Amino acid sequence: MIVGIVGLGLIGGSMAIDLKRRGFADKVLGVEADPVNAAAAGKMGLADEIVPLEECVDRSDIVVIAVPVGTAVKMLPQVLDRFQAQGAKDKIVIDTCSTKSRIVRSVHYHPYRECYVATHPMAGTEYSGPRAAMPNLFDGRACIFANSEESSDKALRKIEELYGVLNMRPTYMNADNHDVHTAYISHISHVTSFALALTVLDKEKDEKHIFDLASGGFSSTVRLAKSNSDMWVPILVQNRDNVLQVVDTYIDKMKEFREAIDACDEARIEELIHQANRIKKIIR
Amino acid sequence: MIVGIVGLGLIGGSMAIDLKRRGFADKVLGVEADPVNAAAAGKMGLADEIVPLEECVDRSDIVVIAVPVGTAVKMLPQVLDRFQAQGAKDKIVIDTCSTKSRIVRSVHYHPYRECYVATHPMAGTEYSGPRAAMPNLFDGRACIFANSEESSDKALRKIEELYGVLNMRPTYMNADNHDVHTAYISHISHVTSFALALTVLDKEKDEKHIFDLASGGFSSTVRLAKSNSDMWVPILVQNRDNVLQVVDTYIDKMKEFREAIDACDEARIEELIHQANRIKKIIR
Repeated sequence: MIVGIVGLGLIGGSMAIDLKRRGFADKVLGVEADPVNAAAAGKMGLADEIVPLEECVDRSDIVVIAVPVGTAVKMLPQVLDRFQAQGAKDKIVIDTCSTKSRIVRSVHYHPYRECYVATHPMAGTEYSGPRAAMPNLFDGRACIFANSEESSDKALRKIEELYGVLNMRPTYMNADNHDVHTAYISHISHVTSFALALTVLDKEKDEKHIFDLASGGFSSTVRLAKSNSDMWVPILVQNRDNVLQVVDTYIDKMKEFREAIDACDEARIEELIHQANRIKKIIR
Repeated sequence: MIVGIVGLGLIGGSMAIDLKRRGFADKVLGVEADPVNAAAAGKMGLADEIVPLEECVDRSDIVVIAVPVGTAVKMLPQVLDRFQAQGAKDKIVIDTCSTKSRIVRSVHYHPYRECYVATHPMAGTEYSGPRAAMPNLFDGRACIFANSEESSDKALRKIEELYGVLNMRPTYMNADNHDVHTAYISHISHVTSFALALTVLDKEKDEKHIFDLASGGFSSTVRLAKSNSDMWVPILVQNRDNVLQVVDTYIDKMKEFREAIDACDEARIEELIHQANRIKKIIR
């Protein structure tokens, strides 16, 4: 089995490592547009060969698109076009993007749509690029399959096998629901971290104080603010409507806290904290 | 050296463990008002004896007040009164609270003020109570000494030695500055986590979805929302003015993001993320 991975960053690079060493891929072909990243990926041995996109598509049994979703939306139809031009119905292409509605819509009527499986492996760190790639990144996490009924059974089974090798738990939902849930569970926490970093950087002109005083709690809450704009700008724009809804609810909750603190209303603050504490039961 | 620790929770209990095993305390006397916590602390061997507050004050060389700041503000003058009644100028009392202005003011004119050293060890987790106590909690973190010029040299040196045994880095500032900085670096991240938990719990009626889909990023951003209201209500009320200022700045930053996303202004979102990314240089 030859697996072609387009984008050897955190997600693509980590997949390359585990699919190869766990025996799913006999060979990994890598595509990396950025020459610095290509050199780093080569040095780290993430792929057996770094090749141009067209060659990767032609030689691979499975093509993994692991680039920011703005680029992925343009690339996916090109890959399916190339499958079609060669009559290669047995090939499969997947993407790993964090928003699904738009990318799924972009190929909804493509004659080779069934060769595409839309997935979102819910794993990551705040780092990016080939040097952020690591073994075991996906183990035990959820992988969402979006609109899987639009893929052929054969393609779907093969990609379920791929994520099984990565030890991911498959979850199935339609692309629109996916985008609602990820707005709440992933996208908002990036926006809140970015805003927290901006607030602290704005006010604490003396960065040494932040460094000296930052507790583990602050570091954990702000760590997503290190995340890469190449990845996050298209996510926030593509999932605009859902993200705005969550941001509005979130600002309302902040204002509830603000009012309770402003009034020194201890009973109300306590009630809000007790409600928030319910997250204990859900998040380990 | 006999060290009395009032409140054998996360902070007091963790201090008890390390001060004893690292040889600073020959004996640890514990005070624990809650009978369930007292039983747990006894079982865990956090203190050599659990005693009433008065006995603890009378028998200890150093008294550590490690209870929520609302209670601590009332307890500290009583401890100094008892020192005074016994003419025990060689005894020391410290507190470990997260807000300092009010507690320092509460004993500013006390004749035995110099026996008190105001400290804030900047360490912790989102858990509380004796079972949250752990070895090495303080290693490498900052400990703030507030208004240290109001303590006697002898008392200050002894408490610097105590935190030295806990491997903490001492930092000195006045109580009002302390409360400004901690509003930015600690208190706000608790409020943002509480608000995030409330938002997600409000919208994701199906808690199974949160559990299934929560990525490491979300868990890390929301983990402070597990924090205890007994501790956090008095902190937010005592540091009201500073916290409100930060909350307002924070809401403004959220609104900037909201506007940029609403307008699909990719350049502006990118700029905000780049600014937020500066936190990378400061937080490891």
